[in-house]
Amino acid sequence: MADCIFCRIARGDIDAAEVYRDDEIVAFRDINPQAPVHMLVIPVAHLTGIAAADDDDIALLGKLLKVARDLAAEQGLDKRGYRLVINQGLEAGQSVDHIHVHLLGGRPMRWPPG
Amino acid sequence: MADCIFCRIARGDIDAAEVYRDDEIVAFRDINPQAPVHMLVIPVAHLTGIAAADDDDIALLGKLLKVARDLAAEQGLDKRGYRLVINQGLEAGQSVDHIHVHLLGGRPMRWPPG
Repeated sequence: MADCIFCRIARGDIDAAEVYRDDEIVAFRDINPQAPVHMLVIPVAHLTGIAAADDDDIALLGKLLKVARDLAAEQGLDKRGYRLVINQGLEAGQSVDHIHVHLLGGRPMRWPPG
Repeated sequence: MADCIFCRIARGDIDAAEVYRDDEIVAFRDINPQAPVHMLVIPVAHLTGIAAADDDDIALLGKLLKVARDLAAEQGLDKRGYRLVINQGLEAGQSVDHIHVHLLGGRPMRWPPG
């Protein structure tokens, strides 16, 4: 998608504070962080959201979580804990229509989760 | 784990408001719902949290998200949207040490997510 901001980050067309990259997945710091650690993990391939994922995407969904988990460990969050969040659509406040996993940590998280 | 409450639900030893079950995954309504739709999706196998998942568990992680996605669609949430949350450890408020995906929907979700 030529004008999707996360596709442009994945292609390297615009800068982001990247923390991870492989052939399938890119991760970078959220531009509006809601916690001391706030990163986004996205697939390189454009997928509007989890509702649009089909059965062929299940392995990719698992890999998004794995990369988020590994980044959390790298940030030293395993002992303290962290929260992973996926927003789908309007009522969740999904702000970019390219699936992304939020990794939040470094402070106590409240309940409910929004 | 004999005394893990989610293992006991997965075994059918204690009742829960089940909404899904297959050989690997069970889902049920949260006993303290934070939204009109609030379900938990868990693996039958005991896994303390996402930090404890190893590379062999990636497909299972993907399947947890897939079941949550399918339940959201069944609940008519695709158009309105929904939020998926995984809590790991103390600062996230993980209350049961058996990995679970929260599916929340049916109301606008706030930001930050806790």
